[in-house]
Amino acid sequence: MKAYSDMGRDELLTLKAGLEEKFKTEEAKGLSLNMARGKPGASQLALSMPMLDVINSKSDMTTLLGNDTRNYGDWDGIGECRRLLADMMGVRKDNVIVCGNSSLNIMYDTVVRSMVSGVNGSTPWGKLDKVKFLCPVPGYDRHFKITELFGIEMVNIPLHDDGPDMDLVEEYVNNDAAVKGIWCVPKYSNPTGISYSDEVVRRFANLKPKAEDFRIYWDNAYCIHHIYDDVQDEILNILEECERAGNPDMVYMFASTSKISFPGSGVSAVATSLKNVEDIRKHMNVQIIGHDKINQLRHARFFKDIDGLKAHMKKHSDLLRPKFEAVLNILEEELAGLGIGSWIKPRGGYFISFEAMSGCAKSIVAKCKQLGLVLTDAGATYPYGKDPADSNIRIAPSFPTPEEMAEATRMFVLCVKLASIEKLLEE
Amino acid sequence: MKAYSDMGRDELLTLKAGLEEKFKTEEAKGLSLNMARGKPGASQLALSMPMLDVINSKSDMTTLLGNDTRNYGDWDGIGECRRLLADMMGVRKDNVIVCGNSSLNIMYDTVVRSMVSGVNGSTPWGKLDKVKFLCPVPGYDRHFKITELFGIEMVNIPLHDDGPDMDLVEEYVNNDAAVKGIWCVPKYSNPTGISYSDEVVRRFANLKPKAEDFRIYWDNAYCIHHIYDDVQDEILNILEECERAGNPDMVYMFASTSKISFPGSGVSAVATSLKNVEDIRKHMNVQIIGHDKINQLRHARFFKDIDGLKAHMKKHSDLLRPKFEAVLNILEEELAGLGIGSWIKPRGGYFISFEAMSGCAKSIVAKCKQLGLVLTDAGATYPYGKDPADSNIRIAPSFPTPEEMAEATRMFVLCVKLASIEKLLEE
Repeated sequence: MKAYSDMGRDELLTLKAGLEEKFKTEEAKGLSLNMARGKPGASQLALSMPMLDVINSKSDMTTLLGNDTRNYGDWDGIGECRRLLADMMGVRKDNVIVCGNSSLNIMYDTVVRSMVSGVNGSTPWGKLDKVKFLCPVPGYDRHFKITELFGIEMVNIPLHDDGPDMDLVEEYVNNDAAVKGIWCVPKYSNPTGISYSDEVVRRFANLKPKAEDFRIYWDNAYCIHHIYDDVQDEILNILEECERAGNPDMVYMFASTSKISFPGSGVSAVATSLKNVEDIRKHMNVQIIGHDKINQLRHARFFKDIDGLKAHMKKHSDLLRPKFEAVLNILEEELAGLGIGSWIKPRGGYFISFEAMSGCAKSIVAKCKQLGLVLTDAGATYPYGKDPADSNIRIAPSFPTPEEMAEATRMFVLCVKLASIEKLLEE
Repeated sequence: MKAYSDMGRDELLTLKAGLEEKFKTEEAKGLSLNMARGKPGASQLALSMPMLDVINSKSDMTTLLGNDTRNYGDWDGIGECRRLLADMMGVRKDNVIVCGNSSLNIMYDTVVRSMVSGVNGSTPWGKLDKVKFLCPVPGYDRHFKITELFGIEMVNIPLHDDGPDMDLVEEYVNNDAAVKGIWCVPKYSNPTGISYSDEVVRRFANLKPKAEDFRIYWDNAYCIHHIYDDVQDEILNILEECERAGNPDMVYMFASTSKISFPGSGVSAVATSLKNVEDIRKHMNVQIIGHDKINQLRHARFFKDIDGLKAHMKKHSDLLRPKFEAVLNILEEELAGLGIGSWIKPRGGYFISFEAMSGCAKSIVAKCKQLGLVLTDAGATYPYGKDPADSNIRIAPSFPTPEEMAEATRMFVLCVKLASIEKLLEE
């Protein structure tokens, strides 16, 4: 393959003409495909249908401790579900609060609580002139939307193959008292798919925050969401590492079964130090009497234990793998060596992150849209929707079928080529 | 019956000796009964068990509009569930957002949102020196806990038989810009059981708030929660009345199925003007992708429509009525004419409010506790847990059986008599 940048103007123009012809043919097909969000596909949803039979009108509705799941009580979740999610998150049951169907909602609540009431007795963030969050980029748009909503200033931190740029993280956290948090997806990161190295996790745990109310928002969204059976990432346990480093209260870990059972009807949890649990309890006991415990029971009885969860996740990975491979194979076939894009082959999670030539992402996404292929908005993986290099595109391969994914990726590749040539011709 | 206040000291002392004897006998029984919270009883929970069969692994999981309830989407709830709750609340479907299992959580979120981001563009309450809420008393302790948590100053407003003292409400709302809200349980009020008269509702709708961001928190928790078939309260529709009065955005109405289906696993909703819905949407779309739609589908398919809801509520009332009557009959038999307590016979809701002699509530609750009978803490029905007259006690008859309720009420009456005599002898 010859890199586009090595081509002369005429060569590029000829190539462009051929691609434009192809583009018109594709456009005429009037396709409609959505790869914008990390939505599980229909076959994945079907995996959890038997869960809906586990609790029925004949079921014993009491927990192992004898509490009636149908009535009020158990603000922090029923014991067996706390156990299940604790094992999934690799933490102790006492550190876990099981909540409703959305870990995003727990994160929102955690930020809101800090805004209005502070963190473990600190000054409420809403009363401070400036509050900053560090945002490893590219990252998860919904994280950034929460901090944006509350006027929290977001600082971009480059995300490398082994995690965020820790020199920069240390510089900010250890010196700037306005820095109150950092958004992390430590395993199979959204969108790049990388996992934090042991060294990175240890450097996180050993931060010396200038602000006593600095917290790591550790969104372990893909903790058991592997794609392969043989090659799986493992990350260090941040709660344990923080304890060891003398920073026991510095982290909130979040997780959910949204991409294990049902995206709309799973259970979510936060895991943190007992001191933080107590701080959360004071608020949560005012906020709600308790979350949906019948659904917690349904999850606990269906999955039984961590082995049950893992066996279920293997089924998911068998369905997801062909979709990821469809994308990766075509990217490799069509783009390798052209110098107009790079990507990481993820071992888990829900996304493939495509790094286009500088200044091409918006144009590629727009061209895809013209062909009926909806991608996440260019820029969405950056705070305020502003990708400084206009280069990152998040591909979500989970919802379409493998065949659709292959077709979609062929069109994507076409748009990447066209946009890149247009860019090169401009220069 | 001779009123205690007409008795001489010797007569009271003799009576006291007999009651103390009885108290010792009861104490020896070592009873354990809880009438502290409005928890549905086991027989009520059984009513909704068939709901758990409505959705199973063979079910069509799509909404009437064809959306898959198992996946992300429908942030404001699935259409058929919005319709069901709209009909229950007597409002239009477009005004309804269906949320999770807790209307308390929606109220908390609404206050939090106002604290951090203001109301429809107003100054965030957290940035103001003083924010006040009016609190009709006696009222619902969990309402008061929310405003207390955020440092909102609570102002007691006497609750009469037809609603809050509206002269006072108007005086505050129309003249004090710091007054941003009022907590209301307009139908079968918690705890007194009264319902707001048409005149009261109209005076609410016609308030001329000094603060543009003043809102009525209209917690219609017991909207279809009657106790009798023949005598049922109806209240005017506050949304319509506010619209008519030119105050369309002044009210949030809340409701849930916590005391219809399952206390821990129901669905909740807020109903408000389209302008307010849009304000909520901006936040909620950052807070959560969507609530549990499978549970919404379960509710919509089980109850079908408002008639299904009403038929179900009749079954609840058949179970609750004997419990309420057990309490009311014994109060009547034992206390009528003694001048040491009064109560209202409710036609719906979950509570009987007992008004003891001034300065006796704490003593009565403490004595009951000694006999193994747990009541809501004295004072709980007032902001900050401070009942200025120390006279109000909330009785929750729903959880024990009718027989247990009768026994509990006999002990309660014993404690009322004893505490009252002790008080009279002090004077």
